[in-house]
Amino acid sequence: MTFSSKLIEKAVEAFASLPGIGRKTALRLVLHLLKQDSSTTEQFASALVAMRAGIRECSRCYNLADEAVCHICADARRDRSLVCVVENIRDLMAIEDTGQYRGLYHVLGGIISPIDGIGPGDLNIEALADRVKEGDIREVIMAISPTIEGETTIYYLSKKLQPLGVQVSAIARGVSFGGDLEYADELTLGRSIVARTPYATK
Amino acid sequence: MTFSSKLIEKAVEAFASLPGIGRKTALRLVLHLLKQDSSTTEQFASALVAMRAGIRECSRCYNLADEAVCHICADARRDRSLVCVVENIRDLMAIEDTGQYRGLYHVLGGIISPIDGIGPGDLNIEALADRVKEGDIREVIMAISPTIEGETTIYYLSKKLQPLGVQVSAIARGVSFGGDLEYADELTLGRSIVARTPYATK
Repeated sequence: MTFSSKLIEKAVEAFASLPGIGRKTALRLVLHLLKQDSSTTEQFASALVAMRAGIRECSRCYNLADEAVCHICADARRDRSLVCVVENIRDLMAIEDTGQYRGLYHVLGGIISPIDGIGPGDLNIEALADRVKEGDIREVIMAISPTIEGETTIYYLSKKLQPLGVQVSAIARGVSFGGDLEYADELTLGRSIVARTPYATK
Repeated sequence: MTFSSKLIEKAVEAFASLPGIGRKTALRLVLHLLKQDSSTTEQFASALVAMRAGIRECSRCYNLADEAVCHICADARRDRSLVCVVENIRDLMAIEDTGQYRGLYHVLGGIISPIDGIGPGDLNIEALADRVKEGDIREVIMAISPTIEGETTIYYLSKKLQPLGVQVSAIARGVSFGGDLEYADELTLGRSIVARTPYATK
C-alpha cells in the first residue's frame, strides 16, 4: 500500500496495530474520519485518552471502574454473600447481561496457565481469599471456562477456599439450550449424561 | 451490554461509531488498549488528531497530501501529459499499487449520482477542465468503476473534455485475469466477446 501522506500512513498504522484490524480496514477507518468534521476525530481521540488515563480497578473485585469501588460492589441491593469468580471483565459483562445474577464478582485477571507462565501469584487470588476471610461470603461461584487451564484454576481455588469454610460451586456444564444434540461435542454430551439431573415438573 | 464504567462506555461508543465496527469488537479494542501502556493509547490518539488536523488536498489533483502539492504531482519523473481520473483516493492508491502507471491523477471526490443528490458541480470537474486547458495534457484516462453512475460520469466528462482537444480513454473492461469464465457475470462476459481484441503472439 503506497501512501501519499506520512500523516495518513501513521494513522493507518495506528489503527492496524489494533487486534483484528488489517491495513485495508485501517485505511477505510482513516478515510471515514477524514470525511467527518475534525471535531469527530478529536472527540474520538479524547474519549480514548480519557478512558485510558481515568480507568482504575475496583479495590474490592478488580472490575474496571471510574471510582475506587465499582458500581456493582457499591450497589447495596446486591447479595453480598455471593461472589462469582470470573477470568476477566468480558466474562463479567456477559454474566451481567444475562440479568440472572445479583451477587458480587471477583475478577481474577486471567487463569492459571503454566504454558503461558501464569501462576497463581500473577492472579488476584490472595485478595479473593482475604475477602472470604472477612466472613460475609457464603458461596463462591466459579464461572470459569471449562478448559484444561480453567479446570486447573477451579481446582486450585477450591483447595484454597474450602478450608476457609465457604461453599464453592461451579456454573452448570452441559448441552446448550437450543442446541442440536448431534452437534454437541462428545465430551460435553458424555459428561451431561453422567451428570444428569432429576427432571422437575413445575 | 452493561458497562461498569462510563469511561469505557464512551470509548466503546467511539470505536463503535466507526464503520464496520460493532460494540463487541469495540469492547475488544478498548480492552486491548487497557492491556497496553497508556502511552500506546496516547500515541494512537495523537496520530489520528495530527492526521486530521494536518492533512490537506493537493491543489493540483485533489489527492490527500501533507504539503500544498502531493508527492505525485511534485515528482518530476512522472509523465505530465497523462492524467488518470479516479473517483477517490482509495482507487488512486489501488492503481499506484499496480506499479503500471507513471502519469498524474485527478481525484473527482465522488461520481455523478442524481439519486444521492451529487451533481457535476459537487465534484472537482472544473479544476480538471482547467488543467486540460493549460495544454500540457495529451490524454485523460477514465479509471472509474463501470457502474451506471460511473458510466454517466465518464459520459459527462468526455463531453466536456473532448472539445478541449484532449484524447479521452477508459480503462479496459473484460473478464478478470485468473478468473473462471463460468463465474464471470453475464454482462461482462457478453461485452468481452463483443469487444474482443486481436490475439498477439509476442
